[in-house]
Amino acid sequence: MSRGRFITLEGGEGAGKSTVMAVIAATLAQRDIGHELTREPGGTPLAEAIRAVALDPHWTGVMYPETELLLVFAARAQHVRERILPARAAGRWGVSDRYTDASYAYQGGGRDQPVERIAELENWAAPVMPDLTFLLDVPVEQGLARAYSRGARDRMEREQTEFHERVHAGYHRRMAHDPSRFRVIDASQSQADVAAAVKSELLSWIDAPCR
Amino acid sequence: MSRGRFITLEGGEGAGKSTVMAVIAATLAQRDIGHELTREPGGTPLAEAIRAVALDPHWTGVMYPETELLLVFAARAQHVRERILPARAAGRWGVSDRYTDASYAYQGGGRDQPVERIAELENWAAPVMPDLTFLLDVPVEQGLARAYSRGARDRMEREQTEFHERVHAGYHRRMAHDPSRFRVIDASQSQADVAAAVKSELLSWIDAPCR
Repeated sequence: MSRGRFITLEGGEGAGKSTVMAVIAATLAQRDIGHELTREPGGTPLAEAIRAVALDPHWTGVMYPETELLLVFAARAQHVRERILPARAAGRWGVSDRYTDASYAYQGGGRDQPVERIAELENWAAPVMPDLTFLLDVPVEQGLARAYSRGARDRMEREQTEFHERVHAGYHRRMAHDPSRFRVIDASQSQADVAAAVKSELLSWIDAPCR
Repeated sequence: MSRGRFITLEGGEGAGKSTVMAVIAATLAQRDIGHELTREPGGTPLAEAIRAVALDPHWTGVMYPETELLLVFAARAQHVRERILPARAAGRWGVSDRYTDASYAYQGGGRDQPVERIAELENWAAPVMPDLTFLLDVPVEQGLARAYSRGARDRMEREQTEFHERVHAGYHRRMAHDPSRFRVIDASQSQADVAAAVKSELLSWIDAPCR
């Protein structure tokens, strides 16, 4: 039995991640690849309880950037050990809606936490690198318009446009740091075109002889 | 206006910290020293919400040591910035029922997390050292018997005796690391004797010419 692969999906608000999660799941199912879909922050009961604190849309007080960074890594430490590593060991693929790249983008880019601090946490709290990462890339204004049309806004979605611009830039720095892991998808396209692009890239990756 | 001082109170389960918090408060009031009493994990609404997740007595699943360490530091990062630093800046003294020494004892000693990892988190998440720390020292079996007689047990109190022995040893290592900051109180004595010892040590410290 081969080791399960770990695929992550990243992107700012309104990038269309939910739709793409379904496309990835359908594509893996089509190839008979056993897999588990998770999300961050969250993915386990305890990590979801941490998510509820970290993203609480009713929270009106200050949450310091250090607090936020530690909370998302607390949820991640649990998620990695309870879901990602066991799936991998069992030969099942894990697909997570957001992972550590999101911390570099949101807590690093958005909240200005030092990259070295995030890397140090990643090193011991979440020592599993994704094998493949889809970055859904959409202009910030277009993504926010989509997200806002959905209604209720969580703590991140309520942030100013400049915050989301820093998140967007943070994702691009991550990609530049490790380009071979990333597949960038133009998420300003129609849902159908985004779905087709993701499916095509995923099948190419699965079928690559040297993967 | 002089900078407010920061006093912490540490000890294992059943050491009698609640009583001693009241003694410290009364002693400071007697000297007309404005102060704030807090606790960890907690001390602010957000940090108390994190505490509720970290110590949830109804949680029956696994909480990984890394998750626990990150949760207590998330609560601490918030507590330090929302309570301790503003009190200090306003010339008020802060008195916290547990602080970073508790992480060295519980997450370091009890959960075997590396000291270097805790020191690194302390360095950026909680960069405020206490000016004075009372360590209530009681034999583990005696402390646990007291704690259990109170009834409901949280996640820490439910741990095995060996866990609490490691916590106890962890506190003693902390004290050896920075002895001038610590005042060790024999908490196996009667409440009245413990109270008298704490009050005497605190007054000596307040009145010391070179404090």
